[in-house]
Amino acid sequence: MADVVVLGGNGFIGAHVVDRLVVDGHRVAVFGRPRSAPPRYRSADVTVIEGDFANTADLRAAVRGAEIVIHLLSTTTPASAEADASVDVRTNVIQSIALLESCVEAAVGHVYFASTGGAIYGSQGRSSYAETDPTEPVSPYAIGKLAIEGYLRYFHAVAGLRSTALRISNPYGPGQQSHRRQGFIPIALRAILEGRPMTRYGDGSMVRDYLYVEDLADMFSVLVRRVPERFVYNLGSGLGVTVDEVIDALRRVCDMPFTVEDRPTPVTFVDRVVLDSTRFRSEFGDLELTALDEGIRRTLHAMRAEPRG
Amino acid sequence: MADVVVLGGNGFIGAHVVDRLVVDGHRVAVFGRPRSAPPRYRSADVTVIEGDFANTADLRAAVRGAEIVIHLLSTTTPASAEADASVDVRTNVIQSIALLESCVEAAVGHVYFASTGGAIYGSQGRSSYAETDPTEPVSPYAIGKLAIEGYLRYFHAVAGLRSTALRISNPYGPGQQSHRRQGFIPIALRAILEGRPMTRYGDGSMVRDYLYVEDLADMFSVLVRRVPERFVYNLGSGLGVTVDEVIDALRRVCDMPFTVEDRPTPVTFVDRVVLDSTRFRSEFGDLELTALDEGIRRTLHAMRAEPRG
Repeated sequence: MADVVVLGGNGFIGAHVVDRLVVDGHRVAVFGRPRSAPPRYRSADVTVIEGDFANTADLRAAVRGAEIVIHLLSTTTPASAEADASVDVRTNVIQSIALLESCVEAAVGHVYFASTGGAIYGSQGRSSYAETDPTEPVSPYAIGKLAIEGYLRYFHAVAGLRSTALRISNPYGPGQQSHRRQGFIPIALRAILEGRPMTRYGDGSMVRDYLYVEDLADMFSVLVRRVPERFVYNLGSGLGVTVDEVIDALRRVCDMPFTVEDRPTPVTFVDRVVLDSTRFRSEFGDLELTALDEGIRRTLHAMRAEPRG
Repeated sequence: MADVVVLGGNGFIGAHVVDRLVVDGHRVAVFGRPRSAPPRYRSADVTVIEGDFANTADLRAAVRGAEIVIHLLSTTTPASAEADASVDVRTNVIQSIALLESCVEAAVGHVYFASTGGAIYGSQGRSSYAETDPTEPVSPYAIGKLAIEGYLRYFHAVAGLRSTALRISNPYGPGQQSHRRQGFIPIALRAILEGRPMTRYGDGSMVRDYLYVEDLADMFSVLVRRVPERFVYNLGSGLGVTVDEVIDALRRVCDMPFTVEDRPTPVTFVDRVVLDSTRFRSEFGDLELTALDEGIRRTLHAMRAEPRG
């Protein structure tokens, strides 16, 4: 029986986390919808639990006997949630409550939840955001994530369920699907590889905190190995990078000409996201992070190897 | 046609707000379910809009033509929400989204939303909480209120809908129904009047910020008169009062013997709530607040006059 169940383990972040946890010696199971395509994680030693996040009975069966549950599933992306204001609440929030109730019933030891550092703080004009700063989410995606964080607190209070909320910045890297509307770097790389203009939102000054996905998987590795002391952690690089700086990096790495097409910034996008990651670093130590050029290089390399990667 | 529509205008807070706004010269309409009982507000000059909060078509009809919408409706209380973890999300949050969408369609000028100051900050061990402090709600009731605050921000960003979130502390006063599970003071007064022991949760040291409901109605009055500069305001007395201090006040005011029965504090109750109300006061000026003994006296008086008031 698996000791770690990863919901969404076949997603972009999930596949990297699953591979890392298998290397660490965990017995890992992945919960998700049946797929005809081969899995996105590489490890052969993974138990597959087919099921639908929308089906509470499936969730109940998935977490039975698990020591650790990692909840990476989202029915929406920051962009998709805009089209229907309540879809995050009706799907992600409601089913995350059902998942946490299932974890209580199954006496799961610890739940890790992938929240969002990229949108939960909103636009407060701070140079960076720490876990102790107020949250001012504007997008339904981030409002839903914040509500789920609240329910983690609730189920700890009423049922003793231990949990950790991880406010992840902007992960990027191999395996990020450029046909979804999430991930500036792979979307730009795909356009460049296909000879199309890449899209720049706004005037190029928008700042993001990019985290190479393998570095994020390393963070999950230590968080699962040692029980975290705090309830919430920012997981980011701590570095602010503008859109124009990413475009410069893309020019250096790709070494091929491309054009840039400007589009207005969607209104729920925040101007600046930089996560103060002092809390994680002071508890778990400094992890060596992959430099942006190197991360883009590896992403490009993977994309060339797998056209729809 | 009304210029102010109050959803939940026939509730405890609502009735006082409605009476105050009528005195101020507003044309007021009250939205709520059909009732056979006489209304709880006193003004005769109020338009009644019968409808169900769960029915989006009713909400759409209610806000049509309104300049100001005051949203005081809640399908739950802090206590009721505990029984079913997702009921707040399924009812209050989803229908508040529908309400805000209706306000956008109807080009409503300003929405005021009754959030909660008594539970939204959670148990952070601070002596008092300002609007700039982080929110750490534990109860589904407060998690839902925080999500609705997020949607106010969202509809402002995507549709320009102006709104204000009011984080109200612990209002008490005439008209608070002691058979609902909300309101320590009227519940205690009812027990005393009926010769039953009153219930004390915990060891008597739990601190609340009690606000006399007429003072709260005064705050609504100025908030509606002058467009607020900020998005969120704490509405409280700024004074922390322990349960034992309330019991002392009850002894002084009631002037009759009563016994106290101890019960354990529910796990989602926070230890201490005191709202720093500097933001409201510095923008709108100091309002003279009703002292606790005087507020309890008036509440008792009203309760004696109307047995189920």
